[in-house]
Amino acid sequence: MVAANQWIKIKAPATVANMVCGFDILGFAVNNPYDEMEMRWVERTANEPSITIINIDEYQLPTDPEKNVAGAALLAFLEELDEKIKESTITKVISSSNTEKIPTTTKIKFEVKINKLIKPGSGVGSSAASSAGAVVGANYLLGNLFSKDDLVRFAMNGEKLASGVKHADNIAPCIFGGVTLVRSIFPLEVVSLPSPQLYVTIVHPQIEVRTADARSILRQKVLLKDAIKQWGNIAGLVAGLMKSDYDLIGRSLEDVIIEPVRSILIPGFDELKIACKQAGALGGGISGSGPSIFMLSKSKEIAIAVEKEMNQLYDGIGLPHHTYVTTINQGGVEVEN
Amino acid sequence: MVAANQWIKIKAPATVANMVCGFDILGFAVNNPYDEMEMRWVERTANEPSITIINIDEYQLPTDPEKNVAGAALLAFLEELDEKIKESTITKVISSSNTEKIPTTTKIKFEVKINKLIKPGSGVGSSAASSAGAVVGANYLLGNLFSKDDLVRFAMNGEKLASGVKHADNIAPCIFGGVTLVRSIFPLEVVSLPSPQLYVTIVHPQIEVRTADARSILRQKVLLKDAIKQWGNIAGLVAGLMKSDYDLIGRSLEDVIIEPVRSILIPGFDELKIACKQAGALGGGISGSGPSIFMLSKSKEIAIAVEKEMNQLYDGIGLPHHTYVTTINQGGVEVEN
Repeated sequence: MVAANQWIKIKAPATVANMVCGFDILGFAVNNPYDEMEMRWVERTANEPSITIINIDEYQLPTDPEKNVAGAALLAFLEELDEKIKESTITKVISSSNTEKIPTTTKIKFEVKINKLIKPGSGVGSSAASSAGAVVGANYLLGNLFSKDDLVRFAMNGEKLASGVKHADNIAPCIFGGVTLVRSIFPLEVVSLPSPQLYVTIVHPQIEVRTADARSILRQKVLLKDAIKQWGNIAGLVAGLMKSDYDLIGRSLEDVIIEPVRSILIPGFDELKIACKQAGALGGGISGSGPSIFMLSKSKEIAIAVEKEMNQLYDGIGLPHHTYVTTINQGGVEVEN
Repeated sequence: MVAANQWIKIKAPATVANMVCGFDILGFAVNNPYDEMEMRWVERTANEPSITIINIDEYQLPTDPEKNVAGAALLAFLEELDEKIKESTITKVISSSNTEKIPTTTKIKFEVKINKLIKPGSGVGSSAASSAGAVVGANYLLGNLFSKDDLVRFAMNGEKLASGVKHADNIAPCIFGGVTLVRSIFPLEVVSLPSPQLYVTIVHPQIEVRTADARSILRQKVLLKDAIKQWGNIAGLVAGLMKSDYDLIGRSLEDVIIEPVRSILIPGFDELKIACKQAGALGGGISGSGPSIFMLSKSKEIAIAVEKEMNQLYDGIGLPHHTYVTTINQGGVEVEN
């Protein structure tokens, strides 16, 4: 474990959830954008809070741990910490010649500085990055007592705070890196899926789509024949990723259930998709619950051509926007000591 | 190509469609049971039919090519043959020193002898074996002009005749072997999925479940939350097969949509499934539209223990039945010259 008072640096990547046909189950992490965080633990005195959040960005997010997604995730982490410490043999380094048991939660206070570079509400897992970054950081500070599955479980409390739903489709790729499948939420099961080199182009049109709204417009029932088409594509996408078969990936990137309903919330969605595919993209769709849109491509050249199409379309209708050309992040949250 | 009048021997494997969560998309071939067929082509004279079917089993299936599934598949084959021959450079061997172009359909007659060892109506792809065996055989006789995808397309006409629906979930594994994904029917796309060694136990309780009935009781709409659970399992099953992760395969073999509705048609289904899993089976479910039930296991020993449970249960309720302990067939329809 890391000694008290010593800061560590954390990079928590943006993530794309609801990977076209893989609504609620498939997601991936990207190398850009990412949140920067710093964390340390200090000896806690009586009556002190167990978590301090310091925002060093412009977004004025709440600093009360119960109202901040990183705080909510850390509270879940602390709730299971004492139990975990009892099982553990990991010791705390006091000095090179002196070690003792990790202090129990009554003695620990986490200090977290957050520099959000992933804009909240953009649909690329901004809240997940904070939640995931915080628990991966806390775990690192205390000597990695918890498994990645545990960390996903804790971080889901941040998602609950942000969107009302305990979902893991951003948290899982943020912590595991790469493309992840959340096969089951209760009990939680995350499966890492190997994938070939893929370039990702993301456009974030500056409109607001609330996750809660994007959820509420979904129909509760779907046609069985549409569900069958969807699960054919999901199976095709998983097989395509694992076989590094770009054409199969491309053909499988089709969503007949969620996209037709949600895409009406995003100006120019259909035209943009057509233009991007004509520029060579394998396919893509709404990132998370939007408004960001992502496209996957086989090469950097195509990914840049796709970005050009995105800029052209949103410039044309005068909608302010940001774009990113990046790759799939294979490592998840990174910690530097 | 094979010379006129020369018989070839064909082995067409039984297949399990609707692989638990993979309704309408995932299936696999098994090494036992299988149909035996013999086929040859002869020079056709005017006014002769282009196909003769000879049944050498007890089932008294129709021999009129338009009413026989193998006949319907061969008619579709013949319909595209002339066009294919035009594109082709394959020649017909008359003798070792003499070759000529393949005769066009007006000059070809297929003679097919069918020995059904897969009982019709058992739910393990009996009609698919006849349709697939016939077109693989015809293709072999003429020098393999058509691709496997083409053959699946032709054989689907046999399925249409048998069940009213042009489905490929038995045809695809029968022709390709192994585990197959039918990602899309129109246009047809079959994806072969690698799989680890798996033992298959099948029980065929001697009751009749008509495919049309099994289809008609399905609900046309399903809850989105159930569909999401199902596609999580499908993605898990595909990943488990491709990673040779038996535990993941086992956890993913769950069907929350079709099985709860269809299993009521099969006596003792729930008890049987519980008993088989307790005996060590990874999981399983209804084969095709039933009444056969299949279970997958990691070892032959477990597969035999599973068979014992099946026998015990159906003996206990006095229901006549057959069982098979076999493995996944990796090669599909086999032809011997």
